[in-house]
Amino acid sequence: MKQFFYPESIAVIGASEGTEKIGGKTLDAIISHGYEGRIYPIHPRHTHIGGLKAYPDVVSIEDKIDLAIIAIPAQLVCEAVRQCGQKAIPYVLVVSSGFNEAGAEGQALQAELLRVSKEVGVRVSGPNSEGLFTTRTKLAATFSPAINIEIGDLAAKRQIGIVSQSGGLGFGFYNRGRRDNLNFNHIVSVGNQVDLELSDYADYIIEQPETAVVMMYVESFANAKRFVELARRAAVLRKPIVIVKVGRSVAGGKAAASHTGALASPAKVVDAVLDACGVLRADDQGELLDIAAGLTNYALPKDDRVAVVSPSGGTAVWLTDALQAQGFELPTLDENSQSVLQTFIPSFGSTANPVDITAQTTVHGYSETLEVLAKADNIDAIILAASFAHEKRLISEGQRIAELSRSIGKPVLLYSYTLISEGSRARLRDLGLHCFTTIRGCVLALAAMRDYRNFLDKEKQPERVDWLPGPVQTKVKAVLKSYPGKVIAEFQAKQLMELYGIPIAQEAIATDPEHARQIAARIGYPVALKVHSADITHKTEAQVVQLGLPDDRSIEPAFRQILSRAKPYAPDAVIDGVLVQAMAKPGVEMMAGIVMDKQFGPMIMIGSGGIFAEVLEDTALAPAPLSLSESHSLIRRLKGNKLLDGVRGQPAADRNSLAQFLVRLSIMAVNLQNDLVEFDVNPVFVHPDGQGITIVDALGIRSTDEG
Amino acid sequence: MKQFFYPESIAVIGASEGTEKIGGKTLDAIISHGYEGRIYPIHPRHTHIGGLKAYPDVVSIEDKIDLAIIAIPAQLVCEAVRQCGQKAIPYVLVVSSGFNEAGAEGQALQAELLRVSKEVGVRVSGPNSEGLFTTRTKLAATFSPAINIEIGDLAAKRQIGIVSQSGGLGFGFYNRGRRDNLNFNHIVSVGNQVDLELSDYADYIIEQPETAVVMMYVESFANAKRFVELARRAAVLRKPIVIVKVGRSVAGGKAAASHTGALASPAKVVDAVLDACGVLRADDQGELLDIAAGLTNYALPKDDRVAVVSPSGGTAVWLTDALQAQGFELPTLDENSQSVLQTFIPSFGSTANPVDITAQTTVHGYSETLEVLAKADNIDAIILAASFAHEKRLISEGQRIAELSRSIGKPVLLYSYTLISEGSRARLRDLGLHCFTTIRGCVLALAAMRDYRNFLDKEKQPERVDWLPGPVQTKVKAVLKSYPGKVIAEFQAKQLMELYGIPIAQEAIATDPEHARQIAARIGYPVALKVHSADITHKTEAQVVQLGLPDDRSIEPAFRQILSRAKPYAPDAVIDGVLVQAMAKPGVEMMAGIVMDKQFGPMIMIGSGGIFAEVLEDTALAPAPLSLSESHSLIRRLKGNKLLDGVRGQPAADRNSLAQFLVRLSIMAVNLQNDLVEFDVNPVFVHPDGQGITIVDALGIRSTDEG
Repeated sequence: MKQFFYPESIAVIGASEGTEKIGGKTLDAIISHGYEGRIYPIHPRHTHIGGLKAYPDVVSIEDKIDLAIIAIPAQLVCEAVRQCGQKAIPYVLVVSSGFNEAGAEGQALQAELLRVSKEVGVRVSGPNSEGLFTTRTKLAATFSPAINIEIGDLAAKRQIGIVSQSGGLGFGFYNRGRRDNLNFNHIVSVGNQVDLELSDYADYIIEQPETAVVMMYVESFANAKRFVELARRAAVLRKPIVIVKVGRSVAGGKAAASHTGALASPAKVVDAVLDACGVLRADDQGELLDIAAGLTNYALPKDDRVAVVSPSGGTAVWLTDALQAQGFELPTLDENSQSVLQTFIPSFGSTANPVDITAQTTVHGYSETLEVLAKADNIDAIILAASFAHEKRLISEGQRIAELSRSIGKPVLLYSYTLISEGSRARLRDLGLHCFTTIRGCVLALAAMRDYRNFLDKEKQPERVDWLPGPVQTKVKAVLKSYPGKVIAEFQAKQLMELYGIPIAQEAIATDPEHARQIAARIGYPVALKVHSADITHKTEAQVVQLGLPDDRSIEPAFRQILSRAKPYAPDAVIDGVLVQAMAKPGVEMMAGIVMDKQFGPMIMIGSGGIFAEVLEDTALAPAPLSLSESHSLIRRLKGNKLLDGVRGQPAADRNSLAQFLVRLSIMAVNLQNDLVEFDVNPVFVHPDGQGITIVDALGIRSTDEG
Repeated sequence: MKQFFYPESIAVIGASEGTEKIGGKTLDAIISHGYEGRIYPIHPRHTHIGGLKAYPDVVSIEDKIDLAIIAIPAQLVCEAVRQCGQKAIPYVLVVSSGFNEAGAEGQALQAELLRVSKEVGVRVSGPNSEGLFTTRTKLAATFSPAINIEIGDLAAKRQIGIVSQSGGLGFGFYNRGRRDNLNFNHIVSVGNQVDLELSDYADYIIEQPETAVVMMYVESFANAKRFVELARRAAVLRKPIVIVKVGRSVAGGKAAASHTGALASPAKVVDAVLDACGVLRADDQGELLDIAAGLTNYALPKDDRVAVVSPSGGTAVWLTDALQAQGFELPTLDENSQSVLQTFIPSFGSTANPVDITAQTTVHGYSETLEVLAKADNIDAIILAASFAHEKRLISEGQRIAELSRSIGKPVLLYSYTLISEGSRARLRDLGLHCFTTIRGCVLALAAMRDYRNFLDKEKQPERVDWLPGPVQTKVKAVLKSYPGKVIAEFQAKQLMELYGIPIAQEAIATDPEHARQIAARIGYPVALKVHSADITHKTEAQVVQLGLPDDRSIEPAFRQILSRAKPYAPDAVIDGVLVQAMAKPGVEMMAGIVMDKQFGPMIMIGSGGIFAEVLEDTALAPAPLSLSESHSLIRRLKGNKLLDGVRGQPAADRNSLAQFLVRLSIMAVNLQNDLVEFDVNPVFVHPDGQGITIVDALGIRSTDEG
């Protein structure tokens, strides 16, 4: 992608004089920003455009061309790409609109564009892209109006790359971030992604030494698995990706057949995957930039203990609220630190934490306080609140604050509760200091830094999935074969689980009452009887379940009643018989499941059972496979997690068995990702600690490709 | 308060030359902002300060003085106030610090200040205030550095008042709001509120004709009931109050004795009261200003259907997500509207809603679209997204957009996805257009407008509490007298409820097994037996409850077992006997309660019962009394609300009986607000629709003032 991001020569197909048309706008931007490479305007008739020699087509150019920018009507684009192929131009950037976003005709054009580009061996960026901006070579190949601002520090060692599925927003992030002196290396608007897609650009950017953070705006993932690989590579490089993922409100495709499938919405799957691979999320433009600013400008805090320094008591209280809401602690400063602070903070201030230095403290109050906090062992991060409505404070001690911020090894975040005056902005820039302007943004930035540190800590000691099934493939295939329909009913679903080391209570399918009695006698009373049929998946609704049968005598009437109800409920159902199983011991009711996401692959869900599941949709989701500690974390994310600790005098439940079960279910999910689409384990009873779990019911939905 | 906000003459006690000291700073601010009244600097020695004649003390001034600003060391303030009394100055504003915020010594000074001010009849603002700014008379009686900005349109008909418990933040709101051309009439920093408090200032401001919105920053309410009255008055005037309430993280005072008391944290009480009186909340500075901007600049939307117009597809998707998350609808535009839009929007745009006018639409694209949306019956509010990184668009059609925004009777909110250039800002100001700069802020502003409209709609048709108890006072007093201890145990607690028309199942206290059998026979089996003692409030824990006793024979053993367990559990307990009651029919388990908030008075809580209460703290709270529709709304706010609709095949529960019960409980709460501090009704079983509720257990905690 080097020739795309750093072309030595470009052709602008559709260049025109003036800035009325997008071709003209784009050429004008390239020239006026001072692009360092060679520029060849292409125009069928003109000999000069924008003071440059123009060519009738790319083939006529004597020079080698790295990148052609195409800004001509959609119908003409394919032919232009063909010529680029002829000229052996490796990359084209199509800013023209009128493709997939423009009805059937446009879709046909986009399909043709893909075909032609493959045929002639040209990689295509766009179409319908707002372009590319590479700051180092001043390549402003875009018609975005938002980039006519000071370009920033091109030598900065920590820069931000932007890959955006919206040009308006992507260049808007740059526009906003520059005001806060964030430095950017590349901004790419990916357009319709006919060929090159999000991860192609981000892959290149993340490898650049000056890249510290990659910002992305994503509506949908063209290639989810490549994105996951990108995120893994970013984690290895310790370069965070901060993403805005929109389109949550878009309806979620086809209706799901299982409970798990219904609860695992596409938005929840994306959240789960991003969480698992350490991708940070933002929900607003300001938040995105604040998080990126935090990750670019500061070292990560070692722990979660924060000191707040403020001349305004109110600001200190508000920051405290916001920090505590995000899980930070504000420990009281030790006596020694406080006694030093007391030498220069007036008696109506506070030296505890928040440190209220008052509006009347010395002109060096911040830096003196910072020196104390640098040495305080119980402080990992510092927020300095100030008013930069004027630059007085930055003149009196900005230099010292900047030096200390760089040297003390703890992040020092500045926050101004008033607007930042132009004079203050200039001074902050000169001092290399970032300043947040909202409490929310400042605290969310610190929270993102903490989250990313936690993610890296976890990655440092990766816990491998420590359990592997034996050579079960043949047996699994046999079970699947024995039941060729779309639905895998309870008995076979449990057989599958058992092959993956999941404990299944003794049970069997009886074909007549006498058979049922024999099975029950073997299992031991009390027992439960249920109809077994792939065609009757809602057994409770169908009233084909009899629970707590106490003895021999109770079997036959129950057996007959079940069959007599099943017939009218589902006249065409194939009934295998009646499943006889032990009554489950009491326990906390949970549910679990597998859903094979079309984009992200096998996902594991755990949920609170019973009315919790019904009323609260209390579920947590993660990509499979899961390690044991990941399983435990997933369980802890449930609102109903407390139930497992034992409420209302109940004993604590067997968390470990539940977590082990999830690990094994997750391996089954990976192994059977081409065979299953959904798998419900519902309910699961989690017994008191040490007594394991009981899987009461299960149900699989097979992939139609297979079934 | 007129002389405070609009003094015709002021004395500045502690005036000094230069801006080193706060007295000097304040005098300088008053003079340099061009205060229109007469200014008298007070200084023990100087004859002139800041070019004005100075006086040794206020008594020496010949003129009448409306307001004295005091900026001298704390120890000297009381004497100065005494002199102000002598001079019959009605108001003093003490900016000096060193009072309650400065340890025991400061607290003594503040107590003395209160005493002196009462004695000499002077009303005190502050101390420890950052001052007052009245824009119309340019009275900048503050040392805040944040006000040296263009003052705004003093003739504007819709202005914002700021009353802030933090000067830094209060003047910071002004500082930030002015950049967006919000107009302010008064900014008050209330300081330590030794005398004048939040509501005194807000009361005055809300009555001013130009005031459209009052913004408040509050750490704690000095006088909660006056604040509620203020909010009621604001509702009558249709002038919204937008509040930032911090201090949520502050620990909540003494431990509560009942479940209700434990669940009703001070922060939840404040939320409940603010909700009930239509006070809008903000959690960030930007959010506060955006909400105020929405309420100041636009008519309230008639319904919740929004159209989004954007040249950037990404911005449209993001806005759609954010709007839907806030409960707004984006209906598809009708065919007629769409066909007009198609005449000027390119084919690669969209005319459905969001309307994507594309970056290439005509120079009048926004106003042409607005004209269509003005007539669209299914649209109540419009968001126009644009980039104002340059002013081109505002030049081409800003005038028309401004005219349409004023004339079409629907709010038209502008949002820029890039920063707003200085040129655009100037133009927006000239056009009288506000522009939001974050998606969150724009959508939250619209949501606040919707919420306020809903509140006003509700206020328009106030539903009076339609039930009043008979002449129960004597009977109530008798019940309370019969049980003089701190705890009111179940039987008496239920007697109280019965007096307030709440249905209580037949039950009685038995003193021996034979008595219990007689009661049980009267009630009908099965029955429950429980120990009855004000000293044993956790009956289940003490294992002194026997449920589902089927017949005559089962009474005696149960009776004896209960007593045998009660004795060792609580050896000193006074045991009244054993309560015999009917077993409750099944139903949805809920809990309810009363808590008498020290500040806000009687509050009613409703909660999901059982493990929902335990694990989720799923409760909703509102000030008493409640009307029937308020009760219904309160119930609907529970996460477990769905349980009442009937889940898992259960029938719908008797919501109406539950709501009726809450109404009556709320009247009891109001009547007994001086007798009770907490009251638990837990559990309450809500039976299927039409079958009422059963109150299974109850417990009261009496006010110690009475008990």
